[in-house]
Amino acid sequence: MEVSINSLASGIDTVWVLLCAALVFLMEGGFAALEAGFIRSKNSLNIIMKVIMDCTVGMLGYFAVGFALMYGVDKAGLIGWSGFFLKGDFTYLGLKIPLYAYWLFQAAFAIAVATIVSGAVAERMKFAPYIVFSLLATVVIYPVAGHWVWGSGGWLNKLGMLDFAGSAVVHSLGGWASLAAVLVLGPRTGKFGKDGAVHVLPGHNLPLAALGAFLLWFGWFGFNPGSTLSGLDTNIARIAVNTNLSAAAGGTIAAIYTAVKFGKADPSMAINGALGGLVAITAGCAFVEPISAVIIGAFAGMLVVFAVPFFDSLRADDPVGAIAVHGVCGTFGTVAVGIFAENGGLLYGGGLGLLGVQILGVAAVSIWGFAATYGLFSLLKATVGIRVSVDDEIEGLDMSEHGITAYSDLECNPLTALSPVPSARSFPVAEHRLAE
Amino acid sequence: MEVSINSLASGIDTVWVLLCAALVFLMEGGFAALEAGFIRSKNSLNIIMKVIMDCTVGMLGYFAVGFALMYGVDKAGLIGWSGFFLKGDFTYLGLKIPLYAYWLFQAAFAIAVATIVSGAVAERMKFAPYIVFSLLATVVIYPVAGHWVWGSGGWLNKLGMLDFAGSAVVHSLGGWASLAAVLVLGPRTGKFGKDGAVHVLPGHNLPLAALGAFLLWFGWFGFNPGSTLSGLDTNIARIAVNTNLSAAAGGTIAAIYTAVKFGKADPSMAINGALGGLVAITAGCAFVEPISAVIIGAFAGMLVVFAVPFFDSLRADDPVGAIAVHGVCGTFGTVAVGIFAENGGLLYGGGLGLLGVQILGVAAVSIWGFAATYGLFSLLKATVGIRVSVDDEIEGLDMSEHGITAYSDLECNPLTALSPVPSARSFPVAEHRLAE
Amino acid sequence: MEVSINSLASGIDTVWVLLCAALVFLMEGGFAALEAGFIRSKNSLNIIMKVIMDCTVGMLGYFAVGFALMYGVDKAGLIGWSGFFLKGDFTYLGLKIPLYAYWLFQAAFAIAVATIVSGAVAERMKFAPYIVFSLLATVVIYPVAGHWVWGSGGWLNKLGMLDFAGSAVVHSLGGWASLAAVLVLGPRTGKFGKDGAVHVLPGHNLPLAALGAFLLWFGWFGFNPGSTLSGLDTNIARIAVNTNLSAAAGGTIAAIYTAVKFGKADPSMAINGALGGLVAITAGCAFVEPISAVIIGAFAGMLVVFAVPFFDSLRADDPVGAIAVHGVCGTFGTVAVGIFAENGGLLYGGGLGLLGVQILGVAAVSIWGFAATYGLFSLLKATVGIRVSVDDEIEGLDMSEHGITAYSDLECNPLTALSPVPSARSFPVAEHRLAE
Repeated sequence: MEVSINSLASGIDTVWVLLCAALVFLMEGGFAALEAGFIRSKNSLNIIMKVIMDCTVGMLGYFAVGFALMYGVDKAGLIGWSGFFLKGDFTYLGLKIPLYAYWLFQAAFAIAVATIVSGAVAERMKFAPYIVFSLLATVVIYPVAGHWVWGSGGWLNKLGMLDFAGSAVVHSLGGWASLAAVLVLGPRTGKFGKDGAVHVLPGHNLPLAALGAFLLWFGWFGFNPGSTLSGLDTNIARIAVNTNLSAAAGGTIAAIYTAVKFGKADPSMAINGALGGLVAITAGCAFVEPISAVIIGAFAGMLVVFAVPFFDSLRADDPVGAIAVHGVCGTFGTVAVGIFAENGGLLYGGGLGLLGVQILGVAAVSIWGFAATYGLFSLLKATVGIRVSVDDEIEGLDMSEHGITAYSDLECNPLTALSPVPSARSFPVAEHRLAE
Repeated sequence: MEVSINSLASGIDTVWVLLCAALVFLMEGGFAALEAGFIRSKNSLNIIMKVIMDCTVGMLGYFAVGFALMYGVDKAGLIGWSGFFLKGDFTYLGLKIPLYAYWLFQAAFAIAVATIVSGAVAERMKFAPYIVFSLLATVVIYPVAGHWVWGSGGWLNKLGMLDFAGSAVVHSLGGWASLAAVLVLGPRTGKFGKDGAVHVLPGHNLPLAALGAFLLWFGWFGFNPGSTLSGLDTNIARIAVNTNLSAAAGGTIAAIYTAVKFGKADPSMAINGALGGLVAITAGCAFVEPISAVIIGAFAGMLVVFAVPFFDSLRADDPVGAIAVHGVCGTFGTVAVGIFAENGGLLYGGGLGLLGVQILGVAAVSIWGFAATYGLFSLLKATVGIRVSVDDEIEGLDMSEHGITAYSDLECNPLTALSPVPSARSFPVAEHRLAE
Repeated sequence: MEVSINSLASGIDTVWVLLCAALVFLMEGGFAALEAGFIRSKNSLNIIMKVIMDCTVGMLGYFAVGFALMYGVDKAGLIGWSGFFLKGDFTYLGLKIPLYAYWLFQAAFAIAVATIVSGAVAERMKFAPYIVFSLLATVVIYPVAGHWVWGSGGWLNKLGMLDFAGSAVVHSLGGWASLAAVLVLGPRTGKFGKDGAVHVLPGHNLPLAALGAFLLWFGWFGFNPGSTLSGLDTNIARIAVNTNLSAAAGGTIAAIYTAVKFGKADPSMAINGALGGLVAITAGCAFVEPISAVIIGAFAGMLVVFAVPFFDSLRADDPVGAIAVHGVCGTFGTVAVGIFAENGGLLYGGGLGLLGVQILGVAAVSIWGFAATYGLFSLLKATVGIRVSVDDEIEGLDMSEHGITAYSDLECNPLTALSPVPSARSFPVAEHRLAE
């Protein structure tokens, strides 16, 4: 059988997108490990279960409805409305790959939005209302924002907003949704003292968290270059390089800044600095030079270091730093396109036009993510309730929500974090950081 | 140098199969983490060592002999017999990719069969006879079944049995081999009380188990779509979508059912439900519509929830649920092809022909896997012995078989599971489930 | 738009190299897990932070300078000198893929060299001077050796040395650099008794180490076949098969030898045996038959088993076995090309020419790696100091260097290894091995 050139091209693109989708999917395992490792053992299984719900319930929601709202036929620039259950005509998308490949890649993005929030609400949110959130995040919250920016006919798309792989659509949205969720939910018991003190509730398994970060970084090899949707795009290699350089710069800055400032390089900051670099370059990876990627990543690393204690000072309790990494760096990265884009960026003589669109766009997406989540969480709070009891919180959500513990025969002491931290195991850097 | 279209096509296919083979190979790491996490710490390293033996001894066996018995020149539809050590002529296979790429992909499947059994026999089987089993699984047990269904001239192949990526050939075979192994080996000391009570011996590291499940799910992006052996197959994207939807449905159902039934969503059931969905769709992923994949996965999730306590009631002690996930869901998934296949399935007007072949085929493969393993384990039991002493079992196989512990300086209390579980750390869901 | 055959070919190659680069990058996560698991909990986070520094600081160094020294315009066969920050003309490399894809693949190799050393210096080296080493490893030490063998005009390249994916350039270099580092740094407190006794300081999380090994093996699917730089190279499948067979043979031999010799199969030896097989075949994977790969891997597995206690007897304290795995097996594998290469190997009638070049080449690279590292570590020792205080070493580097512990609420007992190991948790195999 003779193979046509077009079928070869389509084959390359399909192979590329499917393998990149696999890498993006594995980011769910990375998120699960990162989030579980950053919190106390008694709640670690619960957070993993929430991530599993994103991958299962959330994926089904995006199949049945979410994709239709995101990429269906446009209604007034605000929403799509066709192709539920992937049925119907999608030829107007002009895809060069099978619709199924496109859907799978997008589905892995959709569930990531819910998962970002799972980390911020860790250690005190009930399981059942989380499932409702996870479903609505993939069915409505993400698809609406996605339609605006990436949907055919979306109003921000028509304005020329550039968000290549989702610094705004995925990360700002998820990050500011996290802030809303945390504000409605309230902080963990014991996080903030009556005297205004901020207490450290240290993560229980930082090697696991670090392994999660490596899986996330690995997944970004699919997240950003895969967003070309074509292995024949001659830009994919530069996108991959930009992605890695930004992560490297973010991790470098966060590690060195904490080392110089506190005398000790902070592991969670180094990890989150690298992740902040990845988030920030996600919008611009296809539009900027490598040296700009280094600068963007370095800024993101600094932003993480300052944003984490800032949200603590607001008493917005985010156990894993999701607001700082995804909200702040996602917003910054989207705006940075207006500055660094070779075509249209401020530094390249593009004036303020693109920059303005980027600011408008990321503001719109962020406000939507914050407002929709604030409303949904408030509604859930007023009805089924979103917070476990203090007793359950002290016992841990693994036992209260799932009837089991993460480590049955390893000795855990999960209550220490609610008591004063023993001097022999104090955390000087963290305390110092918080005392500022 | 000018490149021909045929060499381009071959290159795409080879790249696709090799990368998919890498993903399938990583499933061994996923199995190791899943199985180790689901059992007690004192035996966790031993099970990982057994998986390593599958990857090393087992892979060499499949290289030297197994592949020849599976894909060699057919003898009477029952076995292949040529090409030992990959030497000889394989042109009759009509491969469009290099034989080496084909072998590597198949080798990753072969070792998976042995690894499925490793989980079921965890916590009490001696190491040396396991190596013998691992070798014979890749040298004889799997290749014979594989020849029947996938070998050129295999009798089930000629009957038209459809098992795209191995719900029967890999999973049913491994699952029912697990049942045979467990019946010969007997249950773990302390699993079943004299009064007929079933005790919970909880896994020691469920975050590790969950990470293993994510790696397995990731690996299935290679397992199923890679079985096309061609990146140019226009069906690969739908196969990948079907695979994911089935997993999502299986995990959803298992989580929600346990939440409704017991008031608490069970993590190990959610994980095994998703894996059951993956196993069940493996036969039909290339032949069914996405909505059918959802239905198949949902059924698989339910089957897992009911099958785990069922095998406990038979006193077939399977610490990781391998019989339920691979045996039951693999069998169901193979049969489901006869119902849901767009071409030949009962619901698509295909009548009972394909359904009958599927039932016959999976029965044949399963009986072969059960019988061969039962015989081999009985022989090993009568000669070298397959079970560690009770003292070694209480001490743990890590120390008795390998002279080391998994966690040297973390405090473990691995004997708790043999004592009555302390009330402060009881497992209400699990006990409830078992008490039914 | 019509796609040309050349752009299709370039697309396939780029997709291949980028995905292989992703796999090689994930090896950093594998190294981090392997090294952390093989050492005591109190130092495990510190070693992960060092690996993160390789990925961040090291990657930036290879971007700014390292690549230019390795692949820039040749100066006297000794070094390259052009293309800093990837600026400038690289057309003389004759790449068929984008320079960015080539750089990213190479960058993942460069950081691996530093990471190999991170394991050997674990548990007692200060963090800040490690960053200096990491930077200079990717900026100078690796690029110089790389230029000699792989650089256009490099003197070993011109002599015809064959090192396909870096048994010498990456692994021998890293392994003998590790020996130099360890000799300057000195052994861990408590490793060697005054009476000459060698004490076991057991790894704290061997399941994590094993998971790291699986990630490394997975990464080698990119490391070796990806070094073709082309998905259209008809040799890629055989390279992948050779890689896997060598690993399988190495793991088999190490497990069975320790089982026969000590009555118990040693998990760390089995893991390092498989890794030794991977290292050893890295030079010859493109040049030898599969059966030769089995032989090479088997030898490598034996070499690991003997080399680990040998370096202990030299009081060269290498907590993870990096010198044995990377130094010894890398050297052996490079030399083995002169014996087993189908084209030029001694066993194939090639005489002693190639063998001589291979011995000369690996000696040159190894001496360079040893000498440069010895000099750098000596300089760092004489200036900023490279070793933490004994008090810090007893407390653990996680707390002293980073102000936090890896497992906040899991009970650790990290001092045991400095006390006599309690009899109830003795390690008979390890002690026996050491007592020889």
